[in-house]
Amino acid sequence: MMTLNDLETPCLILDRRRLEANVARMSARARALGVDLRPHMKTAKSADVARLATAGQSGAITVSTLREADYFLDHGFRDITYGVGIAPAKLDRVAALQARGGRVRVVTDSAEVARAVSERAAALGQTFEVLIEVDTGDGRAGVAPESEALIEIGRILAAAAGTTLAGVLTHAGHSYGCRRIEDIVAVAEAERAGAVRAAERLRGAGLPCPVVSVGSTPTALHARTLDGVSEMRPGVYMFQDVFQAAIGSCAVDDIAISVLATVTSHHRERGEILIDAGGLALSKDRSTAESPRDVGYGLVVDVKCENFDTELHVIRVSQEHGIVAAPDGGPVPFESLAPGTRVRVLPNHACFTAAAYDRYHVIDGGSPAADDVIAVWPRVNGW
Amino acid sequence: MMTLNDLETPCLILDRRRLEANVARMSARARALGVDLRPHMKTAKSADVARLATAGQSGAITVSTLREADYFLDHGFRDITYGVGIAPAKLDRVAALQARGGRVRVVTDSAEVARAVSERAAALGQTFEVLIEVDTGDGRAGVAPESEALIEIGRILAAAAGTTLAGVLTHAGHSYGCRRIEDIVAVAEAERAGAVRAAERLRGAGLPCPVVSVGSTPTALHARTLDGVSEMRPGVYMFQDVFQAAIGSCAVDDIAISVLATVTSHHRERGEILIDAGGLALSKDRSTAESPRDVGYGLVVDVKCENFDTELHVIRVSQEHGIVAAPDGGPVPFESLAPGTRVRVLPNHACFTAAAYDRYHVIDGGSPAADDVIAVWPRVNGW
Repeated sequence: MMTLNDLETPCLILDRRRLEANVARMSARARALGVDLRPHMKTAKSADVARLATAGQSGAITVSTLREADYFLDHGFRDITYGVGIAPAKLDRVAALQARGGRVRVVTDSAEVARAVSERAAALGQTFEVLIEVDTGDGRAGVAPESEALIEIGRILAAAAGTTLAGVLTHAGHSYGCRRIEDIVAVAEAERAGAVRAAERLRGAGLPCPVVSVGSTPTALHARTLDGVSEMRPGVYMFQDVFQAAIGSCAVDDIAISVLATVTSHHRERGEILIDAGGLALSKDRSTAESPRDVGYGLVVDVKCENFDTELHVIRVSQEHGIVAAPDGGPVPFESLAPGTRVRVLPNHACFTAAAYDRYHVIDGGSPAADDVIAVWPRVNGW
Repeated sequence: MMTLNDLETPCLILDRRRLEANVARMSARARALGVDLRPHMKTAKSADVARLATAGQSGAITVSTLREADYFLDHGFRDITYGVGIAPAKLDRVAALQARGGRVRVVTDSAEVARAVSERAAALGQTFEVLIEVDTGDGRAGVAPESEALIEIGRILAAAAGTTLAGVLTHAGHSYGCRRIEDIVAVAEAERAGAVRAAERLRGAGLPCPVVSVGSTPTALHARTLDGVSEMRPGVYMFQDVFQAAIGSCAVDDIAISVLATVTSHHRERGEILIDAGGLALSKDRSTAESPRDVGYGLVVDVKCENFDTELHVIRVSQEHGIVAAPDGGPVPFESLAPGTRVRVLPNHACFTAAAYDRYHVIDGGSPAADDVIAVWPRVNGW
């Protein structure tokens, strides 16, 4: 049996016990809220993880790339929402997925794109199911629930022979800006209310709106009610990360992925330790920078995922170097971290850190044999 | 023939003409300075690029991962310096490379690691060539040229049966902090003088020091002299990027890679355009943030790589969304950027942006058929 001490570093470790607990918690949330769970596979990009995340459910998923859609269809996931605004040139690939038995819903917030989708559907002799993206406060994509554009896009999609208006979809990405649970609760209610209002306006205009889809890990975990919503699409909850812990989505002990790294040298004069996990291995995501807990490029724990006496952060990175130090210039446990020692780095943002790897080394964290690598699960990266 | 308008987006475009010009410029610099060029393949990670970068030279290269070493050895590159401080557990893999005919130099700045290397060499019955990393002002890795540690490590490596002291190596990463050419000239001289001083001290102690290796694109381009230096190891010069342009290493028109992306919708009320290249496609590197030219997550040009009338930046990203706007709230040319339109994004930091892709789509930029994809070149990512 391979153990954490046999693996080449840097590599990506996935703690199955933590993953299973995170997945169970979100499944229970969805049941309690009375909505379907359509987990977003953008973080995990793994059929093995998707099987756990959809256990006991319909098997519906959300994806962030058409390569994910391809891969998950290959692995038996047929009900797929591609959650990023569709570019018309991508419809041929969507049509190919449908020809292979997939039911692939696409998303737009543009009347121009809605027209292009209906034209392309006619040219291809296909039908595309389209969700209208609604902006419930995030300010990234989506039309306002009260906008004329919502009804205009709805009418285009409902009228064309080759398109079906599947409903509305929103993403409360601005929940990531919250620093208190009560603020997340408020964002979750704005997300719900905005999506439901958009659905009501479409229905009021005589248009169908079966799907009312919301999603973000913080709002899914803290919404008081999802009345009027049909499904939610959280993703990062499966793994969690230091940023999610900082904003109250989880505890640090819930974080299921980490980067295994090796100490390469000491710079005692600067209170710094070099490890072989740098900006590519950890990502350059700095989302904790503005959070209540800035851990630089990652929180450093020992190979058993336990804290050192002094909290250690990756304070700087270059491509393949990580510089580890105590954030406040505290004492660095050089003796526990001789060159060759293995450490684990808990990521700022799981979606970005995981994207550097083509596989997970899976362990059964917390078990008596927690160092054993019990499986290797592939990931699907790219586009 | 596939063209830029046929490719699925986002994808990575490499302009061969610009690459060839950048490579020729650095080769001429090395010749003029009288040093060998051992190009760092950490940016390109491509045998096709490496063949251009080593044309007319010995074929020696630098790599940043052992996976690169493996790959380049497979492609006939036998003289390889692995430029990141070696972790002793990686020596078995280095030994395997040597057994396959590679000459793989490793690097350390740690007496403890030097001892571990000599012990592992004895256990494996192998000889490892080791360079001592010297810190000439960067503050990342390396011992000081005047340090006791330099001589201590040298003696360990020279005395052990299984190790050869190959010389000294430094990287003036702090040249990236310069904002004026004269400052880069000064860093280049400090890099040269520090490396040469370390070599002289080793030689003065009766130790060999055949290799005196320096490297960074800014210092390689601006050093007045490299007297006493044997080789240089720049890497990002092959592609360049907006950051390198901002600090005077190149012009924006020299940047050889870009991300091809598609407009997915307009948000006129905010002066924003959404494209399908987000934080994974562009990387979250923000190295231009502190530079004279902050372009957010990338500089947006048209599909022919020409500027729009208004300068456009990717001002925000999420995983698969890029938000494009004029940096000072200037007019956005929505009419030129209808949904479906293709754009190219010049990266902040080529090494990080390229790392998201497994291949280059190569074009002959500036030619009458500059839209044609003339080749697809693979990349080797991961560890």
